[in-house]
Amino acid sequence: MAITVASLSFKTLAQSAPIFPKGELATTKTHVGDVWLREVSGPDSTFAFSIAQAVFAPGARLDWHSHPGGQVLMFTDGEGYYQERGKPRQTIHKGELVKCQPGVEHWHGATPTSSVTYLATSPSQKGKTIWFKRVTDEEYGTKK
Amino acid sequence: MAITVASLSFKTLAQSAPIFPKGELATTKTHVGDVWLREVSGPDSTFAFSIAQAVFAPGARLDWHSHPGGQVLMFTDGEGYYQERGKPRQTIHKGELVKCQPGVEHWHGATPTSSVTYLATSPSQKGKTIWFKRVTDEEYGTKK
Repeated sequence: MAITVASLSFKTLAQSAPIFPKGELATTKTHVGDVWLREVSGPDSTFAFSIAQAVFAPGARLDWHSHPGGQVLMFTDGEGYYQERGKPRQTIHKGELVKCQPGVEHWHGATPTSSVTYLATSPSQKGKTIWFKRVTDEEYGTKK
Repeated sequence: MAITVASLSFKTLAQSAPIFPKGELATTKTHVGDVWLREVSGPDSTFAFSIAQAVFAPGARLDWHSHPGGQVLMFTDGEGYYQERGKPRQTIHKGELVKCQPGVEHWHGATPTSSVTYLATSPSQKGKTIWFKRVTDEEYGTKK
């Protein structure tokens, strides 16, 4: 159940172009704000994991959700938030990595004032993401 | 046996800091030039793959090798070379991805004039990298 945040020594707020093209503006109903998703590498018979890039505009965040197979997030640009149910919201920076453990309800997104980009590596064949409630403004920290 | 190069539309020669700290200067005998390796995420019982960042100084390259389980390379900065045995050497840029198929002999590294950084995702529990001959100056393109 532990959250692992690696590489805490390397921090920058510099914003730069994402490594891969931004991709499509997400039209799903499971987030607020502007989120661009791009599948970088799909799972196949040799590589049983997918890699996707997500870019969040300031203020954008996913709803609470969980992954049956877990997910490894590598933050490649900007500054974002990550929170697991029952734990404090954490600020995550470029050069940090979060392992979302299987079945642990959590959310992530940009901060109110910074965009954020991450690469998400997800084991395949473990089932789809399970979506829960919207992140409230209180949880996001923009309303006390 | 096919090489897959994705995201060919996004190219830049701008050099910037690697996403993760550079890590240790490699002391192995299976490369020439300066190579910095950093394990970003080790395999565990939940995530059956490792993620490592490699930074190559201009002119640095690995020896010919193969991976029993294959390897996905995401180029995050600079410009490098990738070559499979019996095929032409290819120039790879930031924002491109290469799937090294299991058992296919290949090498990769920086170009003579640019550093290169990639994130390598490797399925675990398939065995260690198998090393072959050094890349010659003729193969590297610095001697005709």
